[in-house]
Order: sequence, then structure tokens, then C-alpha cells
Amino acid sequence: MSYLEPSTSRFVFATQIVSTPMTDIPLKRRSPVSLRDCNLSKSFELIGDRWTLLILRSALYGLRRFDDFQADLDVPRSVLSNRLAGLVDSGIMERREYREGRQRARIEYPLTRMGQALGLPFMAMAAWGDKWLGDGTSPLTLRSKSTGQRLSVVLVDERGKRAIKSDIEQVIDVKASRKKQVR
Amino acid sequence: MSYLEPSTSRFVFATQIVSTPMTDIPLKRRSPVSLRDCNLSKSFELIGDRWTLLILRSALYGLRRFDDFQADLDVPRSVLSNRLAGLVDSGIMERREYREGRQRARIEYPLTRMGQALGLPFMAMAAWGDKWLGDGTSPLTLRSKSTGQRLSVVLVDERGKRAIKSDIEQVIDVKASRKKQVR
Repeated sequence: MSYLEPSTSRFVFATQIVSTPMTDIPLKRRSPVSLRDCNLSKSFELIGDRWTLLILRSALYGLRRFDDFQADLDVPRSVLSNRLAGLVDSGIMERREYREGRQRARIEYPLTRMGQALGLPFMAMAAWGDKWLGDGTSPLTLRSKSTGQRLSVVLVDERGKRAIKSDIEQVIDVKASRKKQVR
Repeated sequence: MSYLEPSTSRFVFATQIVSTPMTDIPLKRRSPVSLRDCNLSKSFELIGDRWTLLILRSALYGLRRFDDFQADLDVPRSVLSNRLAGLVDSGIMERREYREGRQRARIEYPLTRMGQALGLPFMAMAAWGDKWLGDGTSPLTLRSKSTGQRLSVVLVDERGKRAIKSDIEQVIDVKASRKKQVR
């Protein structure tokens, strides 16, 4: 089968130098997991919008008040209001009253556990941005308090051993595929 | 300072049970890294759109042809065309001719190294989706070919030791903050 007859030598270049989990990607004509069975695509439905992603970034830093998000991101109030409502609906944020001193009650939007769990994918994404879009510096890093060592997001096996690129395979769950047929 | 006088006991609940890198998040009024210095927000500018994210998902599975993306995602052709052009512009995909047998040359869009490196954040995001949005099954998992062990995305220190929640601190780079002042 000759899927590919590249017109330049760049093909060889592109397939030889690879450095990621999903690597040496062989050509496929269809995704092995359908969109409706895919939790990744479901997550994009909830947060796959630039403003929502930026609001979550601020929230992971610790912002939770409407006016603070608005000033931090310079986002139109109606857009912010809409996105926060969506994040509350999907269980990523909670809507809750707070009071400062004797002032009237106001609303804040803290992350739930589900929302806080976005910290890991966002750190992985930030590391990608630092490597490919930045000027070599990382404005934000995570560090161990006790040892001062820099922390990074990696792929490990069940014993905590770091995965080796050439030893990684994708496994598609049979049940998920069957479900697709039945529906 | 009494930032918070929560009206319900849910506050205690929300701050005690936490399970993520960015955890026990103390209230902040502003993000410590400004948007223009933030490589995470830069990355959202490039890929923070639902169609772009779904195209990248398919691409990480191995799709690279226009018609295959179109059929896989049921995306309007003009939208697909626009998003692929953006991904090529930003260096995440390459635009390249291919030929099947004696047919005329066609165009395909393989991921560059930069694009393939999105595999890690996407795996982290998929794991989040599996945990919080799925029915307990993971349609796609990564596995070690040699040992069969399941691979997962985690936060480790420089020696590969898994980070402990309570030992994690955020460090903001001084230069990045200074740059912000100077501009």
C-alpha cells in the first residue's frame, strides 16, 4: 500500500524526529473512537472556547469574583456572565454568596473539585506553550516546597516509571466500540 | 483580612477535599502572570476553539486528509478549511502534497513535531474527561507495549518522583513580572 508519495524529503524528517506520546502517527481515515463516545470531545464542548479557557486559567490562579475576572481578562460583562453560568451548569464552578464586612452579599465562583482537577491538563498545556510559543522562559513553574525541585507533567506507567516513546501503544476499549454499533 | 464569610458550610467542604496540582487555591484578585506574558493564553489563541480542538484530536489519531477530517467530524468545509489554514500558519500542521497511485496530487495536513507535542496535554485532558464526564470507562488508553501497564499523565519532580499535593508551590518568574512593568 502506498498511502504516501511525498513530494519532498520533509516527510522523512517529520516522521523520524518525534518526541511525544502519540508519536510516529500512522495514517488513519477515521478516529477509532466516535465523537459521541469520546470524553475528550465532551470536555471540549464544555470548555473548548477561548474565553472559557481564559476564565479557567484565572480561576486556577485563585480568582473567583465576577469583577476580578472582568478586570483580569478585559472580557465583556455579558460574555463573562454567560461563560460563568455555563461553568456552573457543567459542575466546574460553584455559585456562592460571600460578604465582605458589612457590605451586601455578593456572588463568587470558586472551582469545584472537578474544576480544580483541570490544573493538570492546564499545566501540560502551559508547558507546551512555554516550549513552542515562548521565549525560553516560563513565567509560571510548579516546584516542590521541600526540595525546590521543578515539577513537570509526564506520562508514567503504573509503577511511576516514565514511559519510553517507542514503547507506547494506543488501546481502544472494545465495549466503547460495541456501544457505538448498538446505538 | 476577612475575604470570605461563606453563608454555607460548603466552603469548608470545597477547600478541604482537593486533589490537584493547583490546589487549596487561595483567593487572588489578579492573575500573577499577565495575559500577554502567558504562554498558556497564547496557546489558547491558537487552538482554543472547539473545531480546532476536534481537528487536533482527529489528527493525533492519525487523520491528515481534508475529506477524512470532514467525514470524521461532520464539520462544514469552509470552517475546516479556515481552521486547517490557521493550524498551518501557527506551525502545528504542515501542508503537503500526496499522490495515490496515478491520481492527481492532493493535499494533506500532517502534524509537525510542535503539533505532535500536543499529545501530552490532550491525554491529560482526556483523562479529566474520563473521570468527570464519562461513565467510568475510557475508550482510549495508552499502554506500555512491553509490560502492558497502563500509562497516565502525572506531575513529577526532577528525579521522576510523583509530586505530593501539599508539597506543591507556584513560582512566578521575576523576569516575566519585570518585563510586564517595563513595557
